[in-house]
Amino acid sequence: MTITALAGGVGGAKCLVGLQRILGNDLTAIVNTGDDAEFYGVHVSPDVDIVSYWLAGIADLDRGWGIKDDTFRLVEGLRGLGEEAWFSLGDRDFATCVLRTGRLSGGATLSAVTDEIRRRLGIETHIIPMSDDPVRTRVTTSDGRSLEFQEYFVKERSQPSVDQILFDGISEAKPAPGVIEALTAADRIIICPSNPLLSIEPILALPGVKNALREHPDVMAVTPIVGGQAIKGPLARMLRDLEMEVSPVAVASLYAGICETFVVDEVDAELAEDIKEFIPNVIVAPTIIPSPDDSEALARVLLA
Amino acid sequence: MTITALAGGVGGAKCLVGLQRILGNDLTAIVNTGDDAEFYGVHVSPDVDIVSYWLAGIADLDRGWGIKDDTFRLVEGLRGLGEEAWFSLGDRDFATCVLRTGRLSGGATLSAVTDEIRRRLGIETHIIPMSDDPVRTRVTTSDGRSLEFQEYFVKERSQPSVDQILFDGISEAKPAPGVIEALTAADRIIICPSNPLLSIEPILALPGVKNALREHPDVMAVTPIVGGQAIKGPLARMLRDLEMEVSPVAVASLYAGICETFVVDEVDAELAEDIKEFIPNVIVAPTIIPSPDDSEALARVLLA
Repeated sequence: MTITALAGGVGGAKCLVGLQRILGNDLTAIVNTGDDAEFYGVHVSPDVDIVSYWLAGIADLDRGWGIKDDTFRLVEGLRGLGEEAWFSLGDRDFATCVLRTGRLSGGATLSAVTDEIRRRLGIETHIIPMSDDPVRTRVTTSDGRSLEFQEYFVKERSQPSVDQILFDGISEAKPAPGVIEALTAADRIIICPSNPLLSIEPILALPGVKNALREHPDVMAVTPIVGGQAIKGPLARMLRDLEMEVSPVAVASLYAGICETFVVDEVDAELAEDIKEFIPNVIVAPTIIPSPDDSEALARVLLA
Repeated sequence: MTITALAGGVGGAKCLVGLQRILGNDLTAIVNTGDDAEFYGVHVSPDVDIVSYWLAGIADLDRGWGIKDDTFRLVEGLRGLGEEAWFSLGDRDFATCVLRTGRLSGGATLSAVTDEIRRRLGIETHIIPMSDDPVRTRVTTSDGRSLEFQEYFVKERSQPSVDQILFDGISEAKPAPGVIEALTAADRIIICPSNPLLSIEPILALPGVKNALREHPDVMAVTPIVGGQAIKGPLARMLRDLEMEVSPVAVASLYAGICETFVVDEVDAELAEDIKEFIPNVIVAPTIIPSPDDSEALARVLLA
């Protein structure tokens, strides 16, 4: 069975770990790049790196992002020189970004260097950044400011009330080579339990992607909302800011028309009927996956 | 008394430490940039940084270059990703280079960012890179290769026999703002015990510098050769490759016409008469300066 998954950061990465255990290189992950940014002269690709580090088994599992046992000597050095350096980047993590930036300035595409890093880290899953073209998520706040995503997410710790989420460059961006093919060829498409507004929406907004999902007969989405809370990240707050319910039903409504199946957590089993207003099939399963074994158990449900 | 010193790497830096102790901000150091290079996407300025770190009191005194107690996590990370990464750069040292590179790509000159780093490190001595224009030292070897300086010096550990030393870009380069003024205004100019072929020659080769030294009435050079050996670095080997004597006399011959005084070590006192064939005045003093106190003692001789 071949699976193509859409993923963002930690939630997506944790879900992919179990899928990779079963599928090996029959798994392809298409990863959001709207969070990408330039810091300290390097191209940072947070979601792609989170996914890569989790799949390579080197992720910092507590923090979610970055590499385990990493140090932060370089950014500490910048702070020692008087720089604000509010974007933390571990030294090993920085090495990934240095390699990426060197390849990009040598003319490589983001997808080519992502694949090179994947192979060097010994990862079986094919990892494709959603686009080789720059797409930059931007958040406008209810107090009238326009923030780059990392400013909103890291510097301001997702505190500002969100008015609108924009994807700069999306209208000129094309899906990376292999994205549409991987969607079309997959036996099943899985939308990981990533933030639908920040991580999945930019992928869906690329030309041809939403259509590929609509035409695919077997698209499954896993809820990132469990028991009225986001498993991780600012999704719950954002849904409230945008006057949506913090509920799997709200997420299902966002995926109406592109999904055949929605996977909801056991604690939200009673919402199945409401979800079916938007998505025809509902699976109830344990979706909280603290360990790789839990992730593998969820993967077995998703592949059934 | 105001002093302007010409300096390269470790030998120059050690000498400047004692001078700074006595002179504070009456000292200006003009530093070689021929060793500058791009590594890992950052502008590395080895001699400028060595001088800055020694004067800030944060240098790794054993290694000579870099910052004490620095780690090498980033370059180790690159090696872990399969890169050769033969140019070692500490993580804190890398932070200096990231700051410099950011400022340069924002339009700042090398001399402006060097001064910014100097102030941030709390250094009293004025530090001026010899030029804001790129000058790149290149070594041609007797086996017919043309190596960038760091390839020769670091990657090949100064092992190849040197045929010629070239300074790419020197004919288009101008001295950095303040260089000629600092030379002309100084009560005394001191040529530090740096490698004359690699560190001092590029500075002298910039338009107007040699002339400023010729016209200055009080230029003093300190020998980098003691007892038939170079205090540090590949100078002895290079002199042999170029069929010159490994002797303070050979160094004095290189500075003939631009120096009034040559400082030779006590162990080479008997060479004073030979040196006077090239430079009129010879001072005999202890020139090996393992500690800052030794450097200060030498500085008192140089300022007498």
